Amino acid sequence: MKVKIQIDIRKLIERNDLKTLKLLLQDQEPGTIFEMIEELEASEKIVVFRLLPKDLAAQVFSELEPDEQLEIIRLLKSDPVLREIVKNMEPDDRAELLDELPAPLVTMLLEMLTPEEREETLQILNYPENSAGRVMSPRFIYLEENMTADEALRKIRKFGKKAETIYTLYVVDNSRKLLGFVDLEDIIYAEPHVLIKEIANYNPVFVYTTDDQEEVAQIMRRYDLLVIPVIDKTGTLVGVITIDDVVDIIDEEATEDIQKMAGLNVTYTSYFHTPVLTFFGKRIPWLAILLLLESLSSFVVAHFQNLISMVPILAAFMTLMVGAAGNTGSQISALVIRGMALGEIKTKDFSKVLIRELFQGILLGVALGIILLMRGLLITSDLSVNIAATIALFVVILYANILGVILPFMGKILKIDPAVMAGPVITTVVDVTGMLIYFSIARAIIGI
Amino acid sequence: MKVKIQIDIRKLIERNDLKTLKLLLQDQEPGTIFEMIEELEASEKIVVFRLLPKDLAAQVFSELEPDEQLEIIRLLKSDPVLREIVKNMEPDDRAELLDELPAPLVTMLLEMLTPEEREETLQILNYPENSAGRVMSPRFIYLEENMTADEALRKIRKFGKKAETIYTLYVVDNSRKLLGFVDLEDIIYAEPHVLIKEIANYNPVFVYTTDDQEEVAQIMRRYDLLVIPVIDKTGTLVGVITIDDVVDIIDEEATEDIQKMAGLNVTYTSYFHTPVLTFFGKRIPWLAILLLLESLSSFVVAHFQNLISMVPILAAFMTLMVGAAGNTGSQISALVIRGMALGEIKTKDFSKVLIRELFQGILLGVALGIILLMRGLLITSDLSVNIAATIALFVVILYANILGVILPFMGKILKIDPAVMAGPVITTVVDVTGMLIYFSIARAIIGI
Repeated sequence: MKVKIQIDIRKLIERNDLKTLKLLLQDQEPGTIFEMIEELEASEKIVVFRLLPKDLAAQVFSELEPDEQLEIIRLLKSDPVLREIVKNMEPDDRAELLDELPAPLVTMLLEMLTPEEREETLQILNYPENSAGRVMSPRFIYLEENMTADEALRKIRKFGKKAETIYTLYVVDNSRKLLGFVDLEDIIYAEPHVLIKEIANYNPVFVYTTDDQEEVAQIMRRYDLLVIPVIDKTGTLVGVITIDDVVDIIDEEATEDIQKMAGLNVTYTSYFHTPVLTFFGKRIPWLAILLLLESLSSFVVAHFQNLISMVPILAAFMTLMVGAAGNTGSQISALVIRGMALGEIKTKDFSKVLIRELFQGILLGVALGIILLMRGLLITSDLSVNIAATIALFVVILYANILGVILPFMGKILKIDPAVMAGPVITTVVDVTGMLIYFSIARAIIGI
Repeated sequence: MKVKIQIDIRKLIERNDLKTLKLLLQDQEPGTIFEMIEELEASEKIVVFRLLPKDLAAQVFSELEPDEQLEIIRLLKSDPVLREIVKNMEPDDRAELLDELPAPLVTMLLEMLTPEEREETLQILNYPENSAGRVMSPRFIYLEENMTADEALRKIRKFGKKAETIYTLYVVDNSRKLLGFVDLEDIIYAEPHVLIKEIANYNPVFVYTTDDQEEVAQIMRRYDLLVIPVIDKTGTLVGVITIDDVVDIIDEEATEDIQKMAGLNVTYTSYFHTPVLTFFGKRIPWLAILLLLESLSSFVVAHFQNLISMVPILAAFMTLMVGAAGNTGSQISALVIRGMALGEIKTKDFSKVLIRELFQGILLGVALGIILLMRGLLITSDLSVNIAATIALFVVILYANILGVILPFMGKILKIDPAVMAGPVITTVVDVTGMLIYFSIARAIIGI
């Protein structure tokens, strides 16, 4: 990686040495500036924003976490710097910002924009959350079929700087309906007089404004695209989504899945930028529901009270029994959920997965059963208890492995995100039902 | 999304209607062809590969799963089509393929290449797994400082088709040391006689060949780069990594983390392309270790046998106690692990996270304690048991919340991937130690 600039920006700000600071900030990439100011207070960040060229300030500002953006807006309020930053933001970033601000601030910021910019921003905000319309940029270059390569290049030179990308250009008809695309490199390789229609590809991959961003990411990944065109219901080209936004989406979706799989409601802000109370609100609902569900296990135990009091050593196997089953269920559900997220496992594959995991469950059950039998003999020499525990473990493991397949598929069919059917949910279900299986088998074998 | 072509390729192959098939395959994107043939047998896929233009065949072949690539290579063996496919693959894809094949096949394939291609491939294979050197492409365009924009454009027109990308060009000195870069658009916007050094950016972000691919992905994401240059220790430019490869890396890393967090050893192939026995090998080590660890809980239970036999209702709270604690630990460890993977939480943040989660643990403990107290009164009217269970739950939840912070940090410090310190490991540790806490508190309060 690049050699880091080891300079204490905070000191420069304290010393009010703005000249040196300006010199340092000059010609840096937005990412570098972001790293340089990451640890500064909002009030210190403002000093930096004042010194940055407007478009750079806007880019760095877009990268900040929502809570910091809010604080900086509040601090700058009537400052002309704020107007410049907001005006220079990409339309999609601006829409994202407005989406998270309280209403009075939204009104204030909207008033800073020209009517055209305002409309552009509000249009993006009209699309449903997480849809392609929300992440697209309305700034792209379109070409007509009968332009020559040379005319196209001239158009690109003229309008390119305002566009999100010039590396893929879209071919449209009179009413802006999407016909195809040309890569900039093909225009460069072509003779100047060649017509765009001769080098265009008329089989463009596209998405609709209402498509989910996760689907957009999957398609762009599958087709190795740098840009994808977004069309509305009538087929009109309304925007483009570039790969750098998709990279963020992919990370965001993975984070979402990981959080759901850990039994949390999703948090979109990063760890340190999320208040403790917000996390509490995200965590407690699942914990409470699972605790109540888990408390059903007390009825199971109560039901077998007699058996336990007669063969108390049975209690010694309780936790390890449901623990092992919970782990088995966590494993397979994670595999199935991730496979679904990547599009490798589809709803129609249910029986195929079920058969595989039936077989896998038998293998795991036998292997773990053997381990438990050897281990169990160290806990108690009572053979019937050991045999009961081994058989019960086999059944519980097989059961957990199947449950870890069924629950995510059930989620998918019921249109609940399969990711919630992971670790904690499965562990809890297995705790309650697994104990029932264990004690039933034990009673049958020991014969009480 | 694009309208899908609803044609039964299999029928065309069976009918031997290769003319129609060739027509259909013509001008399709590699991604489309991949989808079209996804469900075909290897022997049927071969028919398609024979009909495809060589470079397209190579691209589609690169997208296949390793087990299918192996099967197709075995089926094609001495067929000239195989030679064409392998020769037309991107060097990094070819290296990846060779890395997974048995030695005799590697030798066979290497013999198909020209000495130059062979060297290129072997060089990539020399870099450590998951390093930047492994995923980079050695095919890039470099410019000299004193070229004019026009000369640069001519060089791009001449060599561009062989390069991985022409959208970013690298400026090097006589000994190919990296000096800076120029975006293609800046060359296009520039007057023809302008010198490259006037429009180049001399502050390039780069990575070393030995850097980890995850780090490369993080840097490219942070700087919104489409391409990143890769240099060796001497500063010489040796390759470029493009964003489409990084998208795959990001997905791969998320999959890796999710699998580790579910207590599995990592599988790099997709679900249906991984044999059941391979999964068994990935799953059983963790399950076995955790089972043995979990079996320590039997000693804990045995130790408190007396207490249980005197107050048997205590057993009814066992599972829900460790269940709730396990869920709490899973949540926080997932948050910390993901934060670490995204670079939001660093080793130095340990005490900051610990203090936050101490506070969070108290909140969660109190909330869950209240729920349990109300619920517990339905299970037993014995107030001292209920108070003992409530206090124990509070302590166990707080403990699990702290453990879910400590274990990932411990992993990071000990250079074990923090992702393994998630759900299953934490649940198991909490099962064993949590029970000890529960019964100790119960004994102290009930006073036996």
